[in-house]
Amino acid sequence: MALIVQKFGGSSVADAAKIRNVARIITDTYKRGDQVVAVLSAQGDTTDDLIEKAAEINPRASGREMDMLLSTGEQISCALCAMAIEAIGCPVVSLTGWQAGFRTDSGYGNARIKRVKTERLQEELDKNRIVIVTGFQGLNRYDDITTLGRGGSDTSAVALAAVLHADLCQIYTDVDGVYTADPRLVPDAVKLDEITYDEMLELATLGAQVLHNRSVEMAKRYNVNLEVLSSFSGHRGTKVKEVVKGMERSHISGVAKDKNIARLALTGLENTPGVAFKIFSLLAKNKVNVDIILQSIGRSESKDISFTVAKGDMDRARQLLEENREQLGFDHIDVSDSLAKVSIVGAGMINNPGVAAAMFEALYNAGINIQMISTSEIKVSVLVDADEAERAVKVIHARFYDELAEQH
Amino acid sequence: MALIVQKFGGSSVADAAKIRNVARIITDTYKRGDQVVAVLSAQGDTTDDLIEKAAEINPRASGREMDMLLSTGEQISCALCAMAIEAIGCPVVSLTGWQAGFRTDSGYGNARIKRVKTERLQEELDKNRIVIVTGFQGLNRYDDITTLGRGGSDTSAVALAAVLHADLCQIYTDVDGVYTADPRLVPDAVKLDEITYDEMLELATLGAQVLHNRSVEMAKRYNVNLEVLSSFSGHRGTKVKEVVKGMERSHISGVAKDKNIARLALTGLENTPGVAFKIFSLLAKNKVNVDIILQSIGRSESKDISFTVAKGDMDRARQLLEENREQLGFDHIDVSDSLAKVSIVGAGMINNPGVAAAMFEALYNAGINIQMISTSEIKVSVLVDADEAERAVKVIHARFYDELAEQH
Repeated sequence: MALIVQKFGGSSVADAAKIRNVARIITDTYKRGDQVVAVLSAQGDTTDDLIEKAAEINPRASGREMDMLLSTGEQISCALCAMAIEAIGCPVVSLTGWQAGFRTDSGYGNARIKRVKTERLQEELDKNRIVIVTGFQGLNRYDDITTLGRGGSDTSAVALAAVLHADLCQIYTDVDGVYTADPRLVPDAVKLDEITYDEMLELATLGAQVLHNRSVEMAKRYNVNLEVLSSFSGHRGTKVKEVVKGMERSHISGVAKDKNIARLALTGLENTPGVAFKIFSLLAKNKVNVDIILQSIGRSESKDISFTVAKGDMDRARQLLEENREQLGFDHIDVSDSLAKVSIVGAGMINNPGVAAAMFEALYNAGINIQMISTSEIKVSVLVDADEAERAVKVIHARFYDELAEQH
Repeated sequence: MALIVQKFGGSSVADAAKIRNVARIITDTYKRGDQVVAVLSAQGDTTDDLIEKAAEINPRASGREMDMLLSTGEQISCALCAMAIEAIGCPVVSLTGWQAGFRTDSGYGNARIKRVKTERLQEELDKNRIVIVTGFQGLNRYDDITTLGRGGSDTSAVALAAVLHADLCQIYTDVDGVYTADPRLVPDAVKLDEITYDEMLELATLGAQVLHNRSVEMAKRYNVNLEVLSSFSGHRGTKVKEVVKGMERSHISGVAKDKNIARLALTGLENTPGVAFKIFSLLAKNKVNVDIILQSIGRSESKDISFTVAKGDMDRARQLLEENREQLGFDHIDVSDSLAKVSIVGAGMINNPGVAAAMFEALYNAGINIQMISTSEIKVSVLVDADEAERAVKVIHARFYDELAEQH
């Protein structure tokens, strides 16, 4: 008997028919003799609808009351799913975040899970019940309801899998698994059978939008076996684990793009130590997250620094820099939000120095100009014109998967 | 500084504009220097919509999961109302039933309040905050969410007023107060300034639908000062209290009708002791509530017993009786659901034996046939054809309020 945590996203529980489908997946697993804890998101657009309702009444409502409001979405989908399971005839109980023992910090709207008290969960599992748990939420030390931020249900599921020592954590979504590129964009994209936590983490951060990156970090830390699969197709999904076997893997596991990016460039900075420190500590203190940083090779008198931030932070970052122009000592700020980041990710890259070069070659052949480059051990990111991002993904994907085809 | 509990029903919080209106009433009270605890129902048809959603998935869903589902309605309206109060700039916190300390028995769907642990409530009031509490719900000893049954928010409000020793419990609704008859039916109906708990209790039970009768019982038991008033008009409402002063009161405080009634008549019962006991203990054991009971004067060999039940219980009551025909020993069952109960209520009746006669006279003059009569110290009820119920209310109301006019 295995213990399996299954997570179903909003699109998987959007209406009565879909909830019945989820109930069937859960009870099929249960009837095979496994214990099941299922974590559900709110139905379809429920969360957005509630946010809209709140905005109509008070656009600057407190985080506490927003969480009080938003947490109802999962409570509704979980109660309905439990009813669907009752109709099938299996023993079941639905639990809210606080009933399931989720304790978080006080950060309303983006709370962090501090611990999960498993007494009630264990009690219900011992009664041989299927347990349905509201994702995305918990209780803080004031006994007030908190939410974990968008996509937090993935994190709820992984946390449960970790504390219950589950054998597997299945993330059901509306895609079949993790692809080498967005299949809507690249029809040749291939579904991966397996991927490492680190690769998945780079892909999640890069906007592949399959798994919430906090959940992947947590899965890596607690060594939770993840599987991403579709609640509709019934096909095998993609397993996410520490080490991936298989000699025939391509050097890269995926190509992703992220258009939520803006670049700021500071020119004419004094060529003295501490300049970068001043700039980025100013931004960090003001909660502006910086992604890629590039510093030009210092000439005798001055140097240039470019960096990227999320689009929503661009204006604030510029304002902060302008306000501190004297202290930072630069000539000019240049900003652009018509860029996109295109990345390739793959653990195999470390031992294959030609991978980055192959990516640049593919872009060169397609006449796509690279504006910035950033690399890590398992990732190469380039900044290109936003208009060229989709074509860039296609030519890079073709380059690597054609290469793979040739090898066979 | 007074402590005032205010309760707002579903129609009072149906949309954003109405929630803002409720927020204004609450903050106006708060700004006058009083402490306010407000109890809210779910918005408009939310509860019915949720019931429909559940029925689509499982028409026989468990009470536990129904309560898990339905309790979200009040959580939404309370969070939104708290946001509206934040927008006005007053300190506020919304609490769910369990956060507000409501502990109930385990009767899902129709739970009884066992106690209210006031620590959190008191703590929030001490912080000078307006406290918004979800009506209609609590937590049972399994730490599962329960609901109090339809109209239970009135009971939540009165319970809070009782445990917090509130100075006043205001029930805001979509009518101005308690009228001598349904104003939609009887345009001459008069709003009462005051009414006793007992009168209100008879009127609530009789279908006046202004206050949930459990809440009136509780208000009487704990001597909570109630006031029924409109959340829209701003007019004075009706006060409900133990003793009502005023020499000029009419003998009756209201005329009400109830069409949710069915009559069963058993004929040819053996004229021996214990027959009534057998019939009504059988029905009670099977949770069929019996209202009016009439037994014909026993002739030598046989007697007849008639009684009324709620329409929804009619078929089950007949079936129970048929199944036990041999043991009960009757000739024939006659049932009818085309009847209505019309009642007059008034504490003044006790000392005015002519009241019942005046009611019968009014019906006689109007040619309305009385099928059954039942009286208590402060009430006279008659059963008439359902088709004649509204006319009966009108002629009775005219009879008593014309009389009142003549006295002056």
